[in-house]
Amino acid sequence: MAGRPRVYLAGPEVFLPDAAAMARRKCALAARIGLEGVFPADAAAGLSPGASPGRAQRARAIFAANEALIRSCDGLIANLTPFRGASADAGTVYELGFMRALGRPVAGYSNVAADYAERVAGLRRRGSAAGDADRPDMAVEDFGLADNLMIAAAIEDCGGVLVRTAAPAGQEMTDLAGFEACLGQIARLIGRRPGG
Amino acid sequence: MAGRPRVYLAGPEVFLPDAAAMARRKCALAARIGLEGVFPADAAAGLSPGASPGRAQRARAIFAANEALIRSCDGLIANLTPFRGASADAGTVYELGFMRALGRPVAGYSNVAADYAERVAGLRRRGSAAGDADRPDMAVEDFGLADNLMIAAAIEDCGGVLVRTAAPAGQEMTDLAGFEACLGQIARLIGRRPGG
Repeated sequence: MAGRPRVYLAGPEVFLPDAAAMARRKCALAARIGLEGVFPADAAAGLSPGASPGRAQRARAIFAANEALIRSCDGLIANLTPFRGASADAGTVYELGFMRALGRPVAGYSNVAADYAERVAGLRRRGSAAGDADRPDMAVEDFGLADNLMIAAAIEDCGGVLVRTAAPAGQEMTDLAGFEACLGQIARLIGRRPGG
Repeated sequence: MAGRPRVYLAGPEVFLPDAAAMARRKCALAARIGLEGVFPADAAAGLSPGASPGRAQRARAIFAANEALIRSCDGLIANLTPFRGASADAGTVYELGFMRALGRPVAGYSNVAADYAERVAGLRRRGSAAGDADRPDMAVEDFGLADNLMIAAAIEDCGGVLVRTAAPAGQEMTDLAGFEACLGQIARLIGRRPGG
């Protein structure tokens, strides 16, 4: 008997001090509509101990576990809230592209409402940070989208929409209104697929 | 008769004012070792005209063209130099994950030598930008890697290594020493594949 559809919950919440609590919250919301939430392995594997003889091996183990988890899922929801720059967390974006190429539905949300172009303008006003290769003469995508067009268009091409919510200040990483909207989208999209 | 192996050249150079010139430089270097370089469609499609009635349609067209180009290629080289934040360009990272899930080899380079953890520390010292959901209590990956572990580990799992070069100041977006190293990697990796 087939189990509940599995949804990979990509996002930088794995870096929260209480990542396990966030995993439980997200999985409980998923379960309410009949989905099994699958949290990345990063948190379980322990990300923060810093330098140690085995850190390259640990990185590889987390990577392999996450790719295997994505492959085991029927869909993916990405927390695309801007993180450490103008765009979403890089690991999350990698996983979104990965699942998209597997041909399974992807959804995503951002808890910051401003357009990508506005946010880049803000970064540039601050002056470029050390080790950032952006240049003032480089074009900035201005499509009215939340992030790079590949991200927003991938979600739309699956039949959903990148959910944008202006979360209350200080709750950008933890507000789950956009996530709940994505759960509805992904349930519908998984249900539509052959065998879904 | 099969043509030369095709390599998708992912990177934020599509946003340079002289993107077409950069495309020619990269494709010429690829051709020297028997590879056909394939540049993203963004530049050709024109990215910067700003608001217009058709901008959503244009975004979708660029997206669809780029995914089709990636599918048409035998491997991918990503310019992973930090761009508008602590990590690589989001569109480039999406494309890296996409090609990885297709099971074809990926390579990549960064023209900034500092570790990801160092760069995040630098960003945090400046104070977080408006609309950035990072928090001081969130863990920072400290694996000695150039970027998020999914990116570096994906390249290593393909059999290569993320090439890190300290490009001269002001040339972080245009220096091609790391790119040339990646060409060698990807030629070897494509050659190893069944049918490659």
